[in-house]
Amino acid sequence: MAGGIGSRFWPFSRNDKPKQFLDFFGTGRSLLQMTVDRFRSVVPIENVLIVTNVIYKDLVLEQIPELRENQVLCEPARRNTAPCIAYAVARIYSETDKANIIVTPSDHLILQEEAFRQSLQTGLEFIENNNVLLTLGMKPTRPETGYGYIQMEDGDTALRKVKTFTEKPNLELAKTFYESGEFLWNSGMFLWNLQTIMRAFAEHLPELAEKFAAGRDVMGKEGEEAFIQAIFPTCPNVSIDYGLMEKADNVSVLCADFGWSDLGTWGSLYDLSRKDENENVTLKCDTAFYQSKGNIVTLPKGKLAVLQGMEDYIVAENDNVLLICKKDAEQQIRQFVNDAQVRFDGQYN
Amino acid sequence: MAGGIGSRFWPFSRNDKPKQFLDFFGTGRSLLQMTVDRFRSVVPIENVLIVTNVIYKDLVLEQIPELRENQVLCEPARRNTAPCIAYAVARIYSETDKANIIVTPSDHLILQEEAFRQSLQTGLEFIENNNVLLTLGMKPTRPETGYGYIQMEDGDTALRKVKTFTEKPNLELAKTFYESGEFLWNSGMFLWNLQTIMRAFAEHLPELAEKFAAGRDVMGKEGEEAFIQAIFPTCPNVSIDYGLMEKADNVSVLCADFGWSDLGTWGSLYDLSRKDENENVTLKCDTAFYQSKGNIVTLPKGKLAVLQGMEDYIVAENDNVLLICKKDAEQQIRQFVNDAQVRFDGQYN
Repeated sequence: MAGGIGSRFWPFSRNDKPKQFLDFFGTGRSLLQMTVDRFRSVVPIENVLIVTNVIYKDLVLEQIPELRENQVLCEPARRNTAPCIAYAVARIYSETDKANIIVTPSDHLILQEEAFRQSLQTGLEFIENNNVLLTLGMKPTRPETGYGYIQMEDGDTALRKVKTFTEKPNLELAKTFYESGEFLWNSGMFLWNLQTIMRAFAEHLPELAEKFAAGRDVMGKEGEEAFIQAIFPTCPNVSIDYGLMEKADNVSVLCADFGWSDLGTWGSLYDLSRKDENENVTLKCDTAFYQSKGNIVTLPKGKLAVLQGMEDYIVAENDNVLLICKKDAEQQIRQFVNDAQVRFDGQYN
Repeated sequence: MAGGIGSRFWPFSRNDKPKQFLDFFGTGRSLLQMTVDRFRSVVPIENVLIVTNVIYKDLVLEQIPELRENQVLCEPARRNTAPCIAYAVARIYSETDKANIIVTPSDHLILQEEAFRQSLQTGLEFIENNNVLLTLGMKPTRPETGYGYIQMEDGDTALRKVKTFTEKPNLELAKTFYESGEFLWNSGMFLWNLQTIMRAFAEHLPELAEKFAAGRDVMGKEGEEAFIQAIFPTCPNVSIDYGLMEKADNVSVLCADFGWSDLGTWGSLYDLSRKDENENVTLKCDTAFYQSKGNIVTLPKGKLAVLQGMEDYIVAENDNVLLICKKDAEQQIRQFVNDAQVRFDGQYN
């Protein structure tokens, strides 16, 4: 899944090149490329499908040049994760009636790739012959309020049935979840086999399932694009969590621990980045700090930021926009983007 | 005089393009160009000499294309204002033995150009036939501690003899000066005739005068460059104020009032710029302020700065450097420049 616009990371993430396409850490690989790389030893590249907005099709093909054009599924409108996954499932079903499927966001960070691969192997073996919707749950390392949580049933195995899904909690609740040992972070990564997910769509999102079933004859063929153009904008704007996972009763979770972050906010990026002796984080650029602490600074490579008298700020520059904002005010960033769009007629989107 | 490096305005002012060559206000004209423009109706352009460091020669000719190459006098080393003026005087003397001379910095701001021209006319008429070193003194508008002051003798004329020159005062003293009505700001602009300034050099800086006198035969000719290369670096590093004006007894001041600033600091630039309802100053770029006041922001034209939770900061970006610094810490900027030079091997000078 590579269709998001990542507005919380504006101006680093921009409409024409959102978060998943950015080289976040100055390593030379974008988050999307790192995600594809991470799956290379698990899934043959010819079995990878990337669902993205049509406006990013060329960017995907440019960043992952091994892909055939028809491996990039183009959404003509933004409709959250359920229609995105339904589209990919319909495409897979046009080619086979037996498949194991891994669903993953393309803009997350995973630090321990070997542990990640082992979790995938465990999961794949399990879902191949079980009618189960499996989600990857992350062992929480702090009472994070920015993630959804999954409550497991009692037990001592890594793989357990899910009791409940919960939305982002407040801090008090997050502490309770964290200390209980029963709760995992919801990573947004799923494993299931083709028959299981098709049954689940038919049961919990029947209208959506029927829309895609109507295209059975054209999927993977010449008529696919026109068909998707016609039905996709009519799909409900609903997430796979809300529309399906929270309603199904055959959901399990695999408890995993491989240094994961959804890179959802500047704060999460700050938390997992290496800090200097004054708790300042520098990404990509050069920096010099004077009487400054707790800042996160990212400018394009080859630039220098000199900060004096700054505490707990985000300083982010990309292309033609510089943002300077208190870390604890980052929830205002969406507003900044919207205001700028109105005031400056879209030139800084 | 256009040889300064303007390090107090780093990173806006850079070694390879210092303050006088910059379009400070986004008007399309640099401070040097504005200075030349300001003199167009007073001095024929063919009588203008621009003294600058040799590394800026091409920049001067590019910005003022009407100049012949030999109107740009090149200093092979930085030696403050006395050698700079001695060089220009020697060149003028190679062409004539009678001339009225106006000396001016090229990086100041003057708002009321007509009042400025009237002061020049008054001054020129006076110095033509008087053996007097005339300085332009600015009627102070506040107890500024960033300027030197000139004390006038008692009287009620605009043109009076100078009693004393004083260095930059502390705030208490500045208040006394300001309230007394006897003190003017030292603008660094001078008027004198050729014979008077040559006599003054001979009397107060005889060593310097002799150095240039030795080149009489080559000045304005083919040998000038080699001669200047040989003697200029041996000249004392001394200002015209300290080396000559403060020692001479034939010094007068013309009290003038034409909206002048030496643009010496970010603070002075902030003070004279137009502010929004939250006392924020924006130069050249677009800005959006949230919970922010008292800032001065300058980015290249066509860029947007979004500031949140910022109070009394300088935010200045130019080329590959971004500076964010409290307004009251701007005296540290020289240190930032020096540190960056050492740490990053000159790439951000």
